[in-house]
Amino acid sequence: MISKRLTGPVLYIANAEEEADILYRTGFSAPGKLVFLEERNGKRHLIVSDLEFKRAQRVASECHIWRLTDFELFGKPVSSLAGSALALINRLKLKKVNVSRTFPYGCASILIDNGVELVIHDKPFYRQREIKSESEIRLIRQSQRAANDAMLAAWRLIKSAEIGKKKLLFVNGTQLTSDLVRAEINKTLLDHNCVGTGTIVACGSQAADPHESGYGPLYANESIVIDIFPRHDRHGYWGDLTRTFVRGKASPALRKMYNAVYAAQKAALSRIRHGAIIRSVHMACEEEFERRGLETESGEGFIHSTGHGLGLEIHENPTLSSSGDKLRAGNVITVEPGLYYHATGGIRIEDVVLVTDTGYRYIAGLKNFFEI
Amino acid sequence: MISKRLTGPVLYIANAEEEADILYRTGFSAPGKLVFLEERNGKRHLIVSDLEFKRAQRVASECHIWRLTDFELFGKPVSSLAGSALALINRLKLKKVNVSRTFPYGCASILIDNGVELVIHDKPFYRQREIKSESEIRLIRQSQRAANDAMLAAWRLIKSAEIGKKKLLFVNGTQLTSDLVRAEINKTLLDHNCVGTGTIVACGSQAADPHESGYGPLYANESIVIDIFPRHDRHGYWGDLTRTFVRGKASPALRKMYNAVYAAQKAALSRIRHGAIIRSVHMACEEEFERRGLETESGEGFIHSTGHGLGLEIHENPTLSSSGDKLRAGNVITVEPGLYYHATGGIRIEDVVLVTDTGYRYIAGLKNFFEI
Repeated sequence: MISKRLTGPVLYIANAEEEADILYRTGFSAPGKLVFLEERNGKRHLIVSDLEFKRAQRVASECHIWRLTDFELFGKPVSSLAGSALALINRLKLKKVNVSRTFPYGCASILIDNGVELVIHDKPFYRQREIKSESEIRLIRQSQRAANDAMLAAWRLIKSAEIGKKKLLFVNGTQLTSDLVRAEINKTLLDHNCVGTGTIVACGSQAADPHESGYGPLYANESIVIDIFPRHDRHGYWGDLTRTFVRGKASPALRKMYNAVYAAQKAALSRIRHGAIIRSVHMACEEEFERRGLETESGEGFIHSTGHGLGLEIHENPTLSSSGDKLRAGNVITVEPGLYYHATGGIRIEDVVLVTDTGYRYIAGLKNFFEI
Repeated sequence: MISKRLTGPVLYIANAEEEADILYRTGFSAPGKLVFLEERNGKRHLIVSDLEFKRAQRVASECHIWRLTDFELFGKPVSSLAGSALALINRLKLKKVNVSRTFPYGCASILIDNGVELVIHDKPFYRQREIKSESEIRLIRQSQRAANDAMLAAWRLIKSAEIGKKKLLFVNGTQLTSDLVRAEINKTLLDHNCVGTGTIVACGSQAADPHESGYGPLYANESIVIDIFPRHDRHGYWGDLTRTFVRGKASPALRKMYNAVYAAQKAALSRIRHGAIIRSVHMACEEEFERRGLETESGEGFIHSTGHGLGLEIHENPTLSSSGDKLRAGNVITVEPGLYYHATGGIRIEDVVLVTDTGYRYIAGLKNFFEI
């Protein structure tokens, strides 16, 4: 089922916290860089600092753990990760290794200068990452439930706000801001051992920019986009959830956008199943918006993809846009159509689902809200 | 004063959130990769996606902001960041650009194949980052104060614990764990708009591993190393603070270690001033430990450097180990000697100071604790 297989060893020199493939294949994470090498037969090697050696042995028990100081080159102890990688490659008598496009050029130069052939291989290196195991689904669910709880905390806080002069919101006399709601969300995530970085609480025209995390006061009768994407502090799997609230009453234009996004998500979901062409899921959203006369042009409208895979990375394969590839049972994906118009605001609704043979299942369902 | 200057343009293709140089020179941060190019005359360029274009124009007002879609190559619109970087390099008639060792090898290949000469330049590209301005010091102080507050919250929580059977700790009948203390710390950080990732609360033998973040129950009469390193969610500057607590009574061996670490930090601090040789600061700690018969061997003892620069990265220049370089007024550095013995536990004390012409100043002082 997995079509593109690697035909040689894989080499990473990277930060295990930033390179999900290393975490996936070793279970080990550490601040700072390390060397990961997987032989064609699946034998895995990690080269770490003395400081990390014992912990790596304990955590990455299926890997051969080396110390940087285990290696010599040209009769001298090696002092760099690239040097240790070269020494390991020599010891294993490898001529050629696969690296990703992100492989550090400085290390690449050293290896190439010493006769190693580097083959740039397009990610994903481990296509099996796209098909989640039962235990992976359980871990993603933990993070998604954390997001649900945090969304409910935000909902309670915004719902409890009084509408004051100039449509400002107040809770117990304190003016409600993006920062206050974000703090409430991120604190709730911590109760689930999850960390929220970049949590979006964006109101009014800010909500019309999908990457604006939001600042300043929140207002009644405007859309407030809340996008929560927690990462579990222990195992590193992500959740991802978006709801859009209006405290008070939405304008007819906003209401029309909300109805369209809600319908677009339903339409996209209805096409999800094992074997579905990804493009058709994305087009379900586009068609819904077109039918309702909600146009996309000059950076406004439906300006992003319908969703993305979720796992050890917040964005991983498959991406739900105009690809001709097929969804596969075991994919865990977000479905998150949105509409953005600077004059009106932004609306996005996002849920995470597991693709099944016959359709989809919510990873951790949460009801929808709009006017509260 | 700044000795090593770049003699040509600088090119980054990187995630602005991960590459502090880009944040330093643009003020702009975004999830995902972008192109940053600085010409020799200081003129700066950013290439971002359509989605980020308006925000980048607003935030990075000193830079020329390009859209990916602004570029053509060989008569076709470019679709990749490397392609857009190549088109920009051609437009500016550059032949040679400086890149860091971490520059992505995939992008490097494309540029080299199209006749661009890449010069690998050792970081730091911007040595001025080592000398903090008044406004940078103010931002670091915000994060350091957040760490102080969070440490006091942890102190209160651990101090309030009852010592139960098997030396377990209980607060209001709930067993006190690393996770509970960490959640208390990270929540307090959020009240300061700071994010704590990797916060260390490590007890007993876990504390003897400086990179173990800690898990499971906390115990009386054992050392509990608490290392808090918050990053400010808005401006990205870090704080860094470590204290070591014992709830109850420390063994004579632990007490001896604590006294030694405390004295080592004092000795190191006493050598800090503009012009001090970095090695001599690190040696002050080593000598203090040697004098007290606390040896370093086979992964135990004083097994890390004395400290590191702090700013837009948690670890930046200068590193306080055996370098012959000199400290300079305006350096902001941690001073964090520690001792680690598996049979006894770990002790680390860490503060952040500003190097001045005549000595040092705490960025945000906090008293010391030990037995509580």
